[in-house]
Amino acid sequence: MIEKVKKTIEKFKLLNKGEKVLLGVSGGADSIALTHVMHRLKGEYDISLHIAHLNHMLRGEEAERDAQFVSAFAEKMGIDCTVGYADVALLAEREKLSLEEAARKARYEFLTGTAEKIGASKIAVGHHADDRAETLLLHLLRGTGPEGLEGIRPKYKNIIRPLIKVTREEIEIYCSEHNLSFVWDSTNEEVIFTRNKIRHQLLPMLKDYNPNIIEALNRTAEILLFENEYMDVETRKVFKEAVISEKDGQKLKLRLEKFLPLHTALQRRLIRYCYTLITGIEEGLEYKHVERVREFIFEGSTGKKIDLPGGAAAYKTYGSVVFFKENFDLNREGVKYHRKIAVPGTTVIPEAGAVIKTEILSAEEVGNEYFFFTSRKGIYGL
Amino acid sequence: MIEKVKKTIEKFKLLNKGEKVLLGVSGGADSIALTHVMHRLKGEYDISLHIAHLNHMLRGEEAERDAQFVSAFAEKMGIDCTVGYADVALLAEREKLSLEEAARKARYEFLTGTAEKIGASKIAVGHHADDRAETLLLHLLRGTGPEGLEGIRPKYKNIIRPLIKVTREEIEIYCSEHNLSFVWDSTNEEVIFTRNKIRHQLLPMLKDYNPNIIEALNRTAEILLFENEYMDVETRKVFKEAVISEKDGQKLKLRLEKFLPLHTALQRRLIRYCYTLITGIEEGLEYKHVERVREFIFEGSTGKKIDLPGGAAAYKTYGSVVFFKENFDLNREGVKYHRKIAVPGTTVIPEAGAVIKTEILSAEEVGNEYFFFTSRKGIYGL
Repeated sequence: MIEKVKKTIEKFKLLNKGEKVLLGVSGGADSIALTHVMHRLKGEYDISLHIAHLNHMLRGEEAERDAQFVSAFAEKMGIDCTVGYADVALLAEREKLSLEEAARKARYEFLTGTAEKIGASKIAVGHHADDRAETLLLHLLRGTGPEGLEGIRPKYKNIIRPLIKVTREEIEIYCSEHNLSFVWDSTNEEVIFTRNKIRHQLLPMLKDYNPNIIEALNRTAEILLFENEYMDVETRKVFKEAVISEKDGQKLKLRLEKFLPLHTALQRRLIRYCYTLITGIEEGLEYKHVERVREFIFEGSTGKKIDLPGGAAAYKTYGSVVFFKENFDLNREGVKYHRKIAVPGTTVIPEAGAVIKTEILSAEEVGNEYFFFTSRKGIYGL
Repeated sequence: MIEKVKKTIEKFKLLNKGEKVLLGVSGGADSIALTHVMHRLKGEYDISLHIAHLNHMLRGEEAERDAQFVSAFAEKMGIDCTVGYADVALLAEREKLSLEEAARKARYEFLTGTAEKIGASKIAVGHHADDRAETLLLHLLRGTGPEGLEGIRPKYKNIIRPLIKVTREEIEIYCSEHNLSFVWDSTNEEVIFTRNKIRHQLLPMLKDYNPNIIEALNRTAEILLFENEYMDVETRKVFKEAVISEKDGQKLKLRLEKFLPLHTALQRRLIRYCYTLITGIEEGLEYKHVERVREFIFEGSTGKKIDLPGGAAAYKTYGSVVFFKENFDLNREGVKYHRKIAVPGTTVIPEAGAVIKTEILSAEEVGNEYFFFTSRKGIYGL
């Protein structure tokens, strides 16, 4: 397994010399194996490590047990560790997200915040080949385009996935060979989320069609990753030629004389790229919306406007289509407020639409380090 | 449904005025509906029609019944009809193909041959949205790249699929609304081929994840179709710059100074394109072979050679890699022979590696038209 990880690190240039790497560790087999492997490779790649664990506060005592487990593991490995807390259930309710989405959001905000705090330039997470196959299927079932089919990228911004080529089976074998114990996430076993259903129902069934289904899906993801990368490069090229940015990028003016001759594939990519730039929504626009924009471009008359999801819109002027974000409230971004926080207790901050709950825990309960984390959008208590 | 078909015909420019269109009709709901719709659109698109039906000789009397049914239907509609026979089981055995592959091969050779004979410029087949979704899944399960995920093209060479946006359900509704009867292919009901397993097991299960799974998969296929088309255009562009054709295209010399700076996605596409040109194998090279060629290009030393599937190979010279087909026997192509064919009886033609079996049937047994069909590779009896 370590050879596969090294190959992945080199192929996708995941590490630079002297870097500090934050390891996202849930305590499951994958992140425990990741930590162990990265620790072994520390000298070879001249990196330093730090562990981060987020308690999602979803599973009470079990979650506490996991946090304790990760702290103890970190100490045994001689790696510094930060433990954080996020009330995922509350976050899900407030932002109308599924528990899984809320957990992911909280986790990534926590990891990014911690990395910044400790000065880590990379965040390594334990996603592996099975995860990638599951993600591909998840997106396929929703009717995604090529971006969804690349599954999970080996590298995205400063997040790296050294285990992306390794299967769950290989990870479990690695753990047993190195006597690594790990915790078992009970939510994983229940078929409550689509992803878990894919893992426990669909993928085992697909093995009947192809015993090497994980490898097959990962191969597809890998091919599409590079094709997407190429299309991204092309899209940025035509963006430079066809789009004029106005008002600090808050308005994007698409010049039709440059747009119309483009291949349909590039037109679609360019519309989605403009949309992402305007809204900050990385997942981009759904196919039906992209096609609606294209129809609008081809058939809409000057002066007309169409609404797009996420508060974006586009209107037509002579020779161009302008994308912008509606109701973009500059003031809101700049709101400043001070509030005394009750410890222990509940503090409501209406300006941020947030509720902060606090309680006092002993150092043993919390683990290696006390971590307080908040964000304008999320609600993170202690 | 007729509106969807018209939209498809226009979007993908499937028909030109005055064309003669050969309809591939199995007698199932899809091809019967196709014929009925095309007949209704005949005037509007100024086309003439001809029906072709191939008896696969796989299901004895039932196959005869289907041929009779199609002949009678053609007569009722007032459309000329050609019925052909192919011993698919024998073909499968001889060419080491699955029955499904052999049937497809025989069908396409029959349709192409008939179209040529009657002077049809297009061949319309009844593939629909469910077929496309199934094909996407079939390829995905094998670990395909983006070409496989586009499923079935609305148009490929002179083959067109006017029903590609229509679901099986819509076709069945159309048939019942227009009192169209059709035959039921019994092999369809048995879960013997992977495709049938996908149809009867996997897709119904996937509806549990997404009730609109057919539409979702077709959306993905549609997006990838255009992305593939764009990549094809780009590949042909770099082909012109990077490849020198020698000996009438029997050798393709890839210039490394042009190849090496290309994006990985284009390098892969270009290798597959060269391979297809050399071998004539449209499905192209598997991922692992493409990667082996790339490794060879980057690391192989001058004078070395690697073998590729289908009798192709590549060797390295100073500054380039040359693709060619090994054991390409020019004489074999030119072999000429005469042989008396025993009717009824069996005739072996060793020069062609073929066996021709013949029997005498009454005109009623054969249908509208007697059709004799042979090919160097396949074995088609009467």
